[in-house]
Amino acid sequence: MTEKRRDEFGLISYLTRRHPTPLPLAKRIEVGNGDDAAVVAGRSGYNWIVCCDAMVEDVHFKRQTMLPHDIGHKALASNISDVAAMGGIPLFYLVSLGLPRTWNEEEVAGIYDGMAELASQHNMALIGGDTVAVPGPLTLTVTVLGEVEHGLALRRSSARPGDSIFVTGTVGDSAGGLHILLQERWGVANIPDEWSALAACHRQPEPHVQAGRILAESGQRIALNDISDGLASEAWEIAEASGVQIVLNEAEIPLSDELIRYAKTSGKDALEWAFYGGEDYRLVGSIAGEHKEEISRAFAAENLSLYWIGRVEAGKAGVLLKRSNGEVTLLPKKGYNHFSEEK
Amino acid sequence: MTEKRRDEFGLISYLTRRHPTPLPLAKRIEVGNGDDAAVVAGRSGYNWIVCCDAMVEDVHFKRQTMLPHDIGHKALASNISDVAAMGGIPLFYLVSLGLPRTWNEEEVAGIYDGMAELASQHNMALIGGDTVAVPGPLTLTVTVLGEVEHGLALRRSSARPGDSIFVTGTVGDSAGGLHILLQERWGVANIPDEWSALAACHRQPEPHVQAGRILAESGQRIALNDISDGLASEAWEIAEASGVQIVLNEAEIPLSDELIRYAKTSGKDALEWAFYGGEDYRLVGSIAGEHKEEISRAFAAENLSLYWIGRVEAGKAGVLLKRSNGEVTLLPKKGYNHFSEEK
Repeated sequence: MTEKRRDEFGLISYLTRRHPTPLPLAKRIEVGNGDDAAVVAGRSGYNWIVCCDAMVEDVHFKRQTMLPHDIGHKALASNISDVAAMGGIPLFYLVSLGLPRTWNEEEVAGIYDGMAELASQHNMALIGGDTVAVPGPLTLTVTVLGEVEHGLALRRSSARPGDSIFVTGTVGDSAGGLHILLQERWGVANIPDEWSALAACHRQPEPHVQAGRILAESGQRIALNDISDGLASEAWEIAEASGVQIVLNEAEIPLSDELIRYAKTSGKDALEWAFYGGEDYRLVGSIAGEHKEEISRAFAAENLSLYWIGRVEAGKAGVLLKRSNGEVTLLPKKGYNHFSEEK
Repeated sequence: MTEKRRDEFGLISYLTRRHPTPLPLAKRIEVGNGDDAAVVAGRSGYNWIVCCDAMVEDVHFKRQTMLPHDIGHKALASNISDVAAMGGIPLFYLVSLGLPRTWNEEEVAGIYDGMAELASQHNMALIGGDTVAVPGPLTLTVTVLGEVEHGLALRRSSARPGDSIFVTGTVGDSAGGLHILLQERWGVANIPDEWSALAACHRQPEPHVQAGRILAESGQRIALNDISDGLASEAWEIAEASGVQIVLNEAEIPLSDELIRYAKTSGKDALEWAFYGGEDYRLVGSIAGEHKEEISRAFAAENLSLYWIGRVEAGKAGVLLKRSNGEVTLLPKKGYNHFSEEK
């Protein structure tokens, strides 16, 4: 398949030019791009982490809300975030791009740039990929390989009664940003300065790799999940996987000043975005109450945010919300698909 | 994203039910399906092999020529074949399915069955995946992880003047099979017995993992490639990666009796299919002439086919064909896209 082959080397040579392989990783690549498969060396004492996620036009993003650069960034970021949520270090990535003929070369280069810049920030190396022309929406599938010390991977199922619940950053910003980007009077290239930081949270989320590493290296029993589908849905996953009840305190859910201001301006509910918006890529998890102080200090030492937002109790698996007025209600589980009619 | 989530667990629970994780692999899975990412243990003395390939409806297959079962089989087979072409052992796989609403549940189950059966034959374990509804053609992206002993991975760039060229099975059968499947008078479910074996070569190709292992375990310097794009194109890749000239002998190219018979019946050229048809998933490679006997014996001992079809010479990188009448011509490089107007 000639066309595929041509594009394949185009993508790989472009990305390699833009972002040379970091030296410590180059030593671990026995066979890199351009052969049938990549061959890479593991490190003694570590296990491999693998994940693969697809981003599809008009399902996960619209061109109205994301520049090509953002699309590349986010497709890689969501996979890096999955590695962070296991407590791991992202290392290598492979890219499979299904490209409709309606995208021009400059736009495709933008997608690659978005990936190359984020990969470079995380010292990752591209080890494979291809591009194929498709008669449908743009589909960007990224596979990421990372590593984590034997026995230190952080699962969703490790929460126990008595744990405290934390989140590593403000939540809802990405959904607020999407709301801004969907306003027809602005469009992605023309957001007012006042709201551009919120829009950036949606367009170029930063995966919390360093936070995940602090948690894994603590050696404590920690449940962990990344926020791709909204805080409610992720807390439910931990509750169900661990067989515990999680109680979140409404007053402690961290909301950014910008989000609160924008929600007020637009007549929306910032908390609704925090619980059901998703794509914040913060980490949410639980740790035994007695280790709260120690973990808080470790985060502070690295100038990283950490918010304590609730606790784990024995009881039927699920997530409760303690309102600021003291009322306790069940927090519904489901997230929503931004672009689908099904809510 | 509720819909994604529902489908995600559907795919994984279906595949796990149909095909339980083989015990030796279960021990190496620290975290399997259902968390943010999978965590697997490497083996001391081995490197990891990784590849990822997408199969798109109307680009790589048509529903007219492939049953759902075939689609699942082939998407996994092409990735296993890439591992085989490195001399490796396939172990784990992840699946990302972009599913249009026009496919019903029974058809989707067929795709999963095709993957589960092939994975079971190769003792592989599913460690991740998701399904997302898409507004476009069906896209099936498979990531395979395998392993190979340190230093034994077989590259395309290892051919040297004096080597002999081999192929591990007949070539062109898949393209002949596709020609049969494209005949409107039959269709995929109604191929005459006489041609059903050829059609099966196209629908359910068998990756040559055992052949790749014999070659890797020999410890010899061997160049290797799998035939996804046709013998000509793959030989060109070896020639260019190694900087050598390859001379193939027309009379020695292995063609099956069925292919010769079908080509005659339909007024087509079997050799054209062999060189430019692709998707045979045999292995083509080169080894120093002095090791021909030893490798032939090793293949014979396992009842595996091996054909010697040419030799490597010094000279400008490229592939020549020595015709049966003694004439030597340049064998054009390019393969073709079955369904595209661009040949």
